[in-house]
Amino acid sequence: MSGKAVYFEDCTVGDQHRSITLSVDKAEIIEFASKWDPQPWHIDEELAKQSMFGGLTACSAHIFSLFCVVSQQWENGELQQVLASLGFDEMRMLKPLYAGDKVYCRNTIELARASRSKDDRGIVATRCELINQKDEVVFSILSTFLMAKKSPASQ
Amino acid sequence: MSGKAVYFEDCTVGDQHRSITLSVDKAEIIEFASKWDPQPWHIDEELAKQSMFGGLTACSAHIFSLFCVVSQQWENGELQQVLASLGFDEMRMLKPLYAGDKVYCRNTIELARASRSKDDRGIVATRCELINQKDEVVFSILSTFLMAKKSPASQ
Repeated sequence: MSGKAVYFEDCTVGDQHRSITLSVDKAEIIEFASKWDPQPWHIDEELAKQSMFGGLTACSAHIFSLFCVVSQQWENGELQQVLASLGFDEMRMLKPLYAGDKVYCRNTIELARASRSKDDRGIVATRCELINQKDEVVFSILSTFLMAKKSPASQ
Repeated sequence: MSGKAVYFEDCTVGDQHRSITLSVDKAEIIEFASKWDPQPWHIDEELAKQSMFGGLTACSAHIFSLFCVVSQQWENGELQQVLASLGFDEMRMLKPLYAGDKVYCRNTIELARASRSKDDRGIVATRCELINQKDEVVFSILSTFLMAKKSPASQ
């Protein structure tokens, strides 16, 4: 990847960016959940069909992992200059994620302010949503991180 | 597993429960991050040694997945009767998780109240912390979920 670098100065509250789209298949759902959340509705197709979900669904850890990998891969190829994560809030699994679904991540900047203690960085918070092929928001999270500045003088 | 079932009525604010201990090895850190967060300090041992962390560290998605699998496995074998997750808040990676570390989860109940709309369940929130072999809290999260009641009449 050799996209344009995105720095703190490029972040404006309200800006949206869209990621590439990922597909989620049955084998991946079963493999992931078998190790990290072995509940019947994540790993056994027959039992999942009889559950309230009506089919195999990805576990929370799998959905968060999908968010982690896809949210960094912007559709326009640009690369965020993230220094470190400051944490995650308001993580919600809003709809089941089924085998065969396709999702992309929509990132909306909610906060962008210069660091008070270090002049080479700023703090950015983005609302990130995974959206499926039916245009439903299946997952939402608020991600806060330190981002490098292009120039120490920027506020 | 055939431990005693833990219902909403068994949950009291302030109660703590401890999970089994899991080990995290280098191969697992590299395998997980190669797929879900392929940053050099998660997948390349030499580059990781030169980074601010001084060694390979598990990615956020891996740490959350470790929390998901270990927090359900209480040391005393008891089984929480969870109906559904309501979400996660205040997720913080407080210290790096290194190859070779061992962690357990300490769950502290912060809220337990009966559902207002359905009399067969309650809402429980637990502060969950992953603690390493040096007794350091490496990860903290607030997990909120619906829990089954033993008896519909309980408040």
